[in-house]
Amino acid sequence: RIDGARLWDSLMQLARIGATEKGGVCRLALTELDGQGRDLFVRWAKEAGCSIRIDAIGNIFARRAGRDDSLPPITTGSHIDTQPTGGKFDGNYGVLAGLEVIRSLNDAGLVTQAPLEIAVWTNEEGSRFVPVMMGSGVFTGAFTLEHALAQRDQSGTSVAEALQAIGYAGPALASADVSPVGAYFEAHIEQGPVLEANRQVIGVVEGALGQRWYDLVLQGMEAHAGPTPMELRRDALLAASEIVLEVNRIALDHAPHARGTVGFIDSYPNSRNVIPGRVRMSVDFRAADDAVLSAMDAELKAAVQRSAAARKVEASVEQVVYFPPQPFAPELVAAVRDAAQAQGLGWMDIVSGAGHDAVYLARVCPTAMIFVPCLDGISHNEIEDAEPAHLEAGCNVLLQAMVASAGG
Amino acid sequence: RIDGARLWDSLMQLARIGATEKGGVCRLALTELDGQGRDLFVRWAKEAGCSIRIDAIGNIFARRAGRDDSLPPITTGSHIDTQPTGGKFDGNYGVLAGLEVIRSLNDAGLVTQAPLEIAVWTNEEGSRFVPVMMGSGVFTGAFTLEHALAQRDQSGTSVAEALQAIGYAGPALASADVSPVGAYFEAHIEQGPVLEANRQVIGVVEGALGQRWYDLVLQGMEAHAGPTPMELRRDALLAASEIVLEVNRIALDHAPHARGTVGFIDSYPNSRNVIPGRVRMSVDFRAADDAVLSAMDAELKAAVQRSAAARKVEASVEQVVYFPPQPFAPELVAAVRDAAQAQGLGWMDIVSGAGHDAVYLARVCPTAMIFVPCLDGISHNEIEDAEPAHLEAGCNVLLQAMVASAGG
Ligand SMILES: NC(=O)NCCC(=O)O
Ligand SMILES: NC(=O)NCCC(=O)O
Repeated sequence: RIDGARLWDSLMQLARIGATEKGGVCRLALTELDGQGRDLFVRWAKEAGCSIRIDAIGNIFARRAGRDDSLPPITTGSHIDTQPTGGKFDGNYGVLAGLEVIRSLNDAGLVTQAPLEIAVWTNEEGSRFVPVMMGSGVFTGAFTLEHALAQRDQSGTSVAEALQAIGYAGPALASADVSPVGAYFEAHIEQGPVLEANRQVIGVVEGALGQRWYDLVLQGMEAHAGPTPMELRRDALLAASEIVLEVNRIALDHAPHARGTVGFIDSYPNSRNVIPGRVRMSVDFRAADDAVLSAMDAELKAAVQRSAAARKVEASVEQVVYFPPQPFAPELVAAVRDAAQAQGLGWMDIVSGAGHDAVYLARVCPTAMIFVPCLDGISHNEIEDAEPAHLEAGCNVLLQAMVASAGG
Repeated sequence: RIDGARLWDSLMQLARIGATEKGGVCRLALTELDGQGRDLFVRWAKEAGCSIRIDAIGNIFARRAGRDDSLPPITTGSHIDTQPTGGKFDGNYGVLAGLEVIRSLNDAGLVTQAPLEIAVWTNEEGSRFVPVMMGSGVFTGAFTLEHALAQRDQSGTSVAEALQAIGYAGPALASADVSPVGAYFEAHIEQGPVLEANRQVIGVVEGALGQRWYDLVLQGMEAHAGPTPMELRRDALLAASEIVLEVNRIALDHAPHARGTVGFIDSYPNSRNVIPGRVRMSVDFRAADDAVLSAMDAELKAAVQRSAAARKVEASVEQVVYFPPQPFAPELVAAVRDAAQAQGLGWMDIVSGAGHDAVYLARVCPTAMIFVPCLDGISHNEIEDAEPAHLEAGCNVLLQAMVASAGG
């Protein structure tokens, strides 16, 4: 049994770093605040007797020795970077639930057969830098370390520079090849309304939607909003607006298991009386079926072509993230289900609409996830909230599933 | 006859202050660069024997005494602030054409009956601060000095603070009541394609389109782009995109003498995998007929209502600029036409799609404008360009019209 009050207390302490006025957290990946959050976790993990390893993309691995340290570790974890308007639980819960599992085993004087590890994956959110799920993506070979290190934020700072600046550029690349993982579990808030609507405490996650992300650039021509006749304009924002609506329509056409969102838009020169000359924007597509995701890709490209031609702008579409729908390992999913059942918790099977580090880990080891409800299904919002009792229940399921995998 | 080479040379010197890589100028109102541009003009005007007065909104008046200094001055001028992606000629031409008129009269040893003034009006562009045409608006009582001084840019700096910072907060409010103007002429590039298409050198400006500008705020709800079902979203950018397209449609419905533009848009939190929670945007409407402008206003409000309801967002619409279509004074328009004709220049009557300080001056004194062509009709763009010969021709028309009004 874990200590729910201690878990809650740790969550609230970590949430102070980057706390926002509206009760949320803004701790973007690899900022100074992210560095402070990492330092706090490392201190706590050392106090819990763990050894610490940092790899070349800044992933943190906190290890608790097992009786047989030659076995691959049973790993849990998540991320502590947040959205600009993020909450206290997204990611942070998975990391601190792992810490609470180790603290509880320490209290009980129990050592598992296989070692246990907590991983804090770098830049899961994908808000400051793409690709999203960067640390776990490098670890599992989804893309290269070099590709990840070279990415830049809107202000031009690279991942490599940001890692150096906060002191989390580790010496070597950890990868699943050189450091195999025995099994991976990740506890997370659901970030959607399904558990709450069904009044269940534990989501037994069967897999996650596939994703395709894009960067679009629409190049028109700046001109004066007054004397320039309507029919001579090359207004990049008109094309962008049509595409925003098309992205939404494409997702609706593939209901119910597809999503389409334009989260980022930047119009230039952004002056009230100037016809917009250039728009940069993102597109985020998700689907439960890879064929649907491919169809959405084709429909997006056709929509961009149509708008570009109609509005006389040049358009470029670059795909910056792709992963197919990812099913989790049936035997580990069953272990999560069994633990929930054994503890008498209301549970249901569920599919994740969000990407998680677990999606990449599932490529290299048996993987499963544990969801708990969040208030009104709201996440990526400062008002994100969760019940202490639900967080405690999810952590107990994690404890039982990890110990079962590691050998009690 | 004015000295076309000297006029061109002054234009090129002023254009160095805030010069951009693409050959344009970025000298936003009341920035340090605007201060440097003002200093250069003041030095030149003093060298040409003018006395200088700065008023409380930062308008600069450079005065050349007349034979009868009790007469109200014959004034010309324009502005030297630019768009973020502005050109070398918009505004600057009108100010430096005025200076060239005075330099030429000095060379010829001619003194007019009435005094002559060059006005450099503060923040005509309306890009950094609204209302647009701010200095002339205060001077003519279109809105109050207090209202103008209190406006803030996107970073929160007020007009009052910015004026202090560059040393152009003059002691007293100049207004047309206390300092009456005998007549006002303004030379400007056309900023549209009409003169070029008709192969004419001088546009005899009969008046300007009316304008209504708005600030819109659409408040939805940030949420996660993955797990949040499409039908539960309150996506502010979807509503904004519909409104962008409606603004365009409304203008097209009132063709050919209506314009509609969304030049500014800001989406929050602007993160790729977050459903946009809030969008702020501008709307710029123009029309030749005030009744049409009112109809467009009503259509905008209806469109915003529809999108807000459909997308479950809250919407606010604030009108931040309004002036009706403004005809110029027939006798001064005729003086411009006569001067063009006398000088054997190809001319045509034209309506201004842009607002100009002359639009406000026309409320307090007889007013007219002189347009010259600009390359491909492009303005509010760094590639804005104009022919030296056309600029010289426009300045000669200005000279003749001013001397005729002031008494030779
Ligand atoms: N869990 C989570 O918020 N991940 C961010 C990546 C995504 O947008 O799915
Ligand atoms: N002339 C000019 O560019 N004025 C700016 C005000 C407007 O947008 O009409």
